[in-house]
Amino acid sequence: MNPADLFQTATELMADYAELLDADRLEEWLDLFTEDATYDVVPRENVEQGLAVSLMVCANKAQLRDRITALRQANEYNLHYDCHLVSGVRARATDEGIVQVSANYAVFQTNLEGQSRLFSVGRYQDCARVVGSRLLLCKKRVIVDTFSVPTLLATPL
Amino acid sequence: MNPADLFQTATELMADYAELLDADRLEEWLDLFTEDATYDVVPRENVEQGLAVSLMVCANKAQLRDRITALRQANEYNLHYDCHLVSGVRARATDEGIVQVSANYAVFQTNLEGQSRLFSVGRYQDCARVVGSRLLLCKKRVIVDTFSVPTLLATPL
Amino acid sequence: MNPADLFQTATELMADYAELLDADRLEEWLDLFTEDATYDVVPRENVEQGLAVSLMVCANKAQLRDRITALRQANEYNLHYDCHLVSGVRARATDEGIVQVSANYAVFQTNLEGQSRLFSVGRYQDCARVVGSRLLLCKKRVIVDTFSVPTLLATPL
Repeated sequence: MNPADLFQTATELMADYAELLDADRLEEWLDLFTEDATYDVVPRENVEQGLAVSLMVCANKAQLRDRITALRQANEYNLHYDCHLVSGVRARATDEGIVQVSANYAVFQTNLEGQSRLFSVGRYQDCARVVGSRLLLCKKRVIVDTFSVPTLLATPL
Repeated sequence: MNPADLFQTATELMADYAELLDADRLEEWLDLFTEDATYDVVPRENVEQGLAVSLMVCANKAQLRDRITALRQANEYNLHYDCHLVSGVRARATDEGIVQVSANYAVFQTNLEGQSRLFSVGRYQDCARVVGSRLLLCKKRVIVDTFSVPTLLATPL
Repeated sequence: MNPADLFQTATELMADYAELLDADRLEEWLDLFTEDATYDVVPRENVEQGLAVSLMVCANKAQLRDRITALRQANEYNLHYDCHLVSGVRARATDEGIVQVSANYAVFQTNLEGQSRLFSVGRYQDCARVVGSRLLLCKKRVIVDTFSVPTLLATPL
């Protein structure tokens, strides 16, 4: 892919990611990952200090799938809407067929009374690769600025 | 239009929309709509439950124009600045010459003391069509996550 | 450059700008400016009233560099993370080889306890020009909606 197409495809992947999460279409959201995909959430402070302490880790898609199943049950008690804003998408192809994709994000959460608040800000630092005709995530790393939110781990970011 | 051009044109329409609203250039903002355009604001909960209850409806551009006139008068008493962030723009052409355009948005409102707050988050789910050389909105639907704000209806989103 | 390339290049410049500021890579951030570049921060109210009162002005890159040096010292006492979201990027080439670039932004700030808050919203109204093979900022104007924040001036926006 040329740089412009790559950027466009990565931007669409990010838009799919946000749209499916926000719409609670979590099973379709899972389809954006390769089978060997990792997903983790790390505080920015730890990344900068070279520490490997994650707030949450899924080592492959099966673990991510388990998590979604658990969420479906938990959601009965913690109802809210998410809204993702994503900006500054970057895409860079590497020699090994991997595309590095990064972007800033903000997630806003709205409760059942219709009140919205800033929930989390941070940065995606991901890897993707082409599988068939689609660009899929093989590594999702969410580097969170916000880490004081008690309910942070309940929802994929 | 090819997909890349369509995406670019839809992204520009969204940018125009936000820029003109934020700059309080409401009469030019009206020019982004076709004469038969509808505009409505619906809580996400209602959309998901299949309810047709809108917080605000304009059935055509004349009604939207009336609303802007009313706003010009009300604005003497409710001064603030709006700032829109829009992300995840999608554009899909249909067979009938309609382009479906969607995106997430956040609106921040700033009062006369210079204090800003999150005002509304949600999603645009729009239809547009080419009129002359421009892509214009023929249906603007604002699906709000935030619906508890008392002043919500005073300002177009 | 054709309009699509120009838009892409301006979008990348904005993404570089945000990424380098957020990562506290301020010396590389400086590299995005031409030597004669101006940087100022102006409340929107002043712009609309035609007043030339800036909250902060750097008349050239040397002044901006001084400011960054000062910030490096001040940062020992005011530790936080910034996260920029930027949307609605516009780029317009003028006859004089200047590219006018504008966009809306929101900056979220996170303290050492991991709590994030909305810090500033507003609009970039910039000029850029091609130097060598890169598009660089020759005028950065930050038009802030938010101006009540006491720490506003400590951090470049």
